[in-house]
Amino acid sequence: MLIVKKFGGSSVANKERIFNVARRCIEDYKKGNDVIVVLSAMGDTTDELIEKAHDINPNAPKREMDMLLTTGEQISVALMAMAMNALGVPAVSLNAFQVSMHTTATYTNAKFKRIDSERIKTELENKKIVIVTGFQGINKFDDYTTLGRGGSDTTAVALAAALHADVCEIFTDVEGVYTADPRIVPNAKKLSEITYDEMLELATLGAKVLHNRSVEMAKKYDVQLVVRSSLTEAEGTVVKEVAKVESMLVSGVAADKNTARIAVMGLKDEPGIAFKIFNLLAKSNINVDIILQSIGRDGTKDISFTVAEDNLKDAIGILNDNKEKITAQKIESDDTVAKVSIVGAGMMTHSGVAAKMFEALYNVGVNIKMISTSEIRTTVLIAREDADKAMKAVHDAFIQD
Amino acid sequence: MLIVKKFGGSSVANKERIFNVARRCIEDYKKGNDVIVVLSAMGDTTDELIEKAHDINPNAPKREMDMLLTTGEQISVALMAMAMNALGVPAVSLNAFQVSMHTTATYTNAKFKRIDSERIKTELENKKIVIVTGFQGINKFDDYTTLGRGGSDTTAVALAAALHADVCEIFTDVEGVYTADPRIVPNAKKLSEITYDEMLELATLGAKVLHNRSVEMAKKYDVQLVVRSSLTEAEGTVVKEVAKVESMLVSGVAADKNTARIAVMGLKDEPGIAFKIFNLLAKSNINVDIILQSIGRDGTKDISFTVAEDNLKDAIGILNDNKEKITAQKIESDDTVAKVSIVGAGMMTHSGVAAKMFEALYNVGVNIKMISTSEIRTTVLIAREDADKAMKAVHDAFIQD
Repeated sequence: MLIVKKFGGSSVANKERIFNVARRCIEDYKKGNDVIVVLSAMGDTTDELIEKAHDINPNAPKREMDMLLTTGEQISVALMAMAMNALGVPAVSLNAFQVSMHTTATYTNAKFKRIDSERIKTELENKKIVIVTGFQGINKFDDYTTLGRGGSDTTAVALAAALHADVCEIFTDVEGVYTADPRIVPNAKKLSEITYDEMLELATLGAKVLHNRSVEMAKKYDVQLVVRSSLTEAEGTVVKEVAKVESMLVSGVAADKNTARIAVMGLKDEPGIAFKIFNLLAKSNINVDIILQSIGRDGTKDISFTVAEDNLKDAIGILNDNKEKITAQKIESDDTVAKVSIVGAGMMTHSGVAAKMFEALYNVGVNIKMISTSEIRTTVLIAREDADKAMKAVHDAFIQD
Repeated sequence: MLIVKKFGGSSVANKERIFNVARRCIEDYKKGNDVIVVLSAMGDTTDELIEKAHDINPNAPKREMDMLLTTGEQISVALMAMAMNALGVPAVSLNAFQVSMHTTATYTNAKFKRIDSERIKTELENKKIVIVTGFQGINKFDDYTTLGRGGSDTTAVALAAALHADVCEIFTDVEGVYTADPRIVPNAKKLSEITYDEMLELATLGAKVLHNRSVEMAKKYDVQLVVRSSLTEAEGTVVKEVAKVESMLVSGVAADKNTARIAVMGLKDEPGIAFKIFNLLAKSNINVDIILQSIGRDGTKDISFTVAEDNLKDAIGILNDNKEKITAQKIESDDTVAKVSIVGAGMMTHSGVAAKMFEALYNVGVNIKMISTSEIRTTVLIAREDADKAMKAVHDAFIQD
């Protein structure tokens, strides 16, 4: 069996943890499996490097940021190879050049294009555990790129897809995917299985267990994902195309506090205005979420939408720079909001799910600012201070049934 | 003009120093020169990484050590590019893969084979300052290699040779090459010029201003080297084929305390014994220095030689393992010795130089254990505790004349 195992930064933060991960990988290796290990940078390494860079140049070129940050994973993989070697098992560490992992040209937010499997195959044939740097790639200029935060999950899935691995295990500090964040909703339950689509909605909505691009890629290439704890031997949650029916309409409740609402008001009621607005934002790599269009005064119209709070400043800047082009009379923003969502494949075939969610929110006095739905998801925008309360109420309404 | 400038780890140890180096390079750039900058890892980074590795595996595989250590220079060059960018000058950092810098396969002690100049030329044509990682290369397996301590000097010279640079400036914490280490001999003088051969003898003998391989390479490819201070604007020392005659017989006095003597005694007096001994050591990459053969008792012979103290344990181990093969009755070692040498192209044409050195040592009561000479060098092995005293006495005898 070929197993890809991915461990995050906290799992390799110090010597003791590095050896724990090494032993865990060696267990699989000794059972006769081929093992590929994907690692993030140790502990706070990435944050420390970012701090160093910002101290020198708050607007450091993105190319150089990637050149800097990719050292973090290289340190992790080299030390892991040394640890496995100390335990008597042959291992080899590889970075993005050595694999090679080709990405798009965009620095700090690249996407995989193609992964060569030759070098890894050769090392596996030589009976080595192969340890690969997560989060990084190389572009057509032979420069380092990074995949953005959480990108190591994507590296693991991309390697699993390229090498046709039997399973891709993502190790985290929780035991699997829960019906809600257990730190906020104490009676949240661990799911034994979940579909790609449900996981994707949860990942996109801030459940933070898996990077959403990694789930997209797993779905596309039919990679069986398992979310497991790096601390215990618990079985974790399997993410796959069709999950067992667990007689639950809703498999998860997620809250996302990294969101802000922008309102562009007094727009001319003519074709192409919405296109212009969202095209401007897309060109700057700003993702837009819930969109709502309404009639304004005097024959104008208003468009509201949400963006990640990290992008708020940039988005407002772009809109103000193009105020005339988009015919806006006024641009406002609100960064005191949060999104709460319910996700479940069962929603497709059951009506009344959204209504039940709104009822639960009404019962605890939470006001809804915007609503957005997909086939398997219902999302509401509410005041950020109500987020935890709303999450608990909605969770109790669906999961405790 | 194309200028290669190399700065060591202490010159880029913190933000302030990084900006100092950046400004210094930008000065040359603004005068219309093409500038390539070679950097070592910041401050104690390399030592800290070695410590981390040894904590995990005291016998870490050398391949993984190189994978680990090469991150140090990559951090330096990325931060330097950010600093130059902050000062408004376009710069790009490149590592060994990006350049690419091909070396022999030997990990931790590789030698350059070939440096591609295409990428650097393109970046220079785009009017960028090019910042290159020192100390590292890649081998035929596409793995990182390192050049051994001080290897960044070699990187700078190799780049200067490959790109036909007009000058290669090596920045250090001293103002140039001195007639002796000024920390030990306070009245040591700075030389304005020195020949490659003299510099090579001094480098090999522990003057520590330049890495000896870098001087060999500079001589071979006729690269004009300048040793300069990273702290002051002083002119430094020019290293070239023929130096100005400064009416000095001896251009430098050097002491090397990293040495130990081995005596292999009671050897059969038959052909091939010396070959066997030194071949065994050479195969383990142990360099042997002063060699002395003498008649032993009962028709046997004794061979004494010096090795770097770092290699003493390994050398003794190898000799003991092969005691019968080399017909040795006894193997002894002494690690309380030091080498003191005088170097000068003028020695070739003047007799009595060695005698004058021995006289100076006799006058201060220093006993000579072994002697070795080349065309431009005389070296004596003495007690390590006498090294500083001997150096001062010899320096006074020649340089103060």
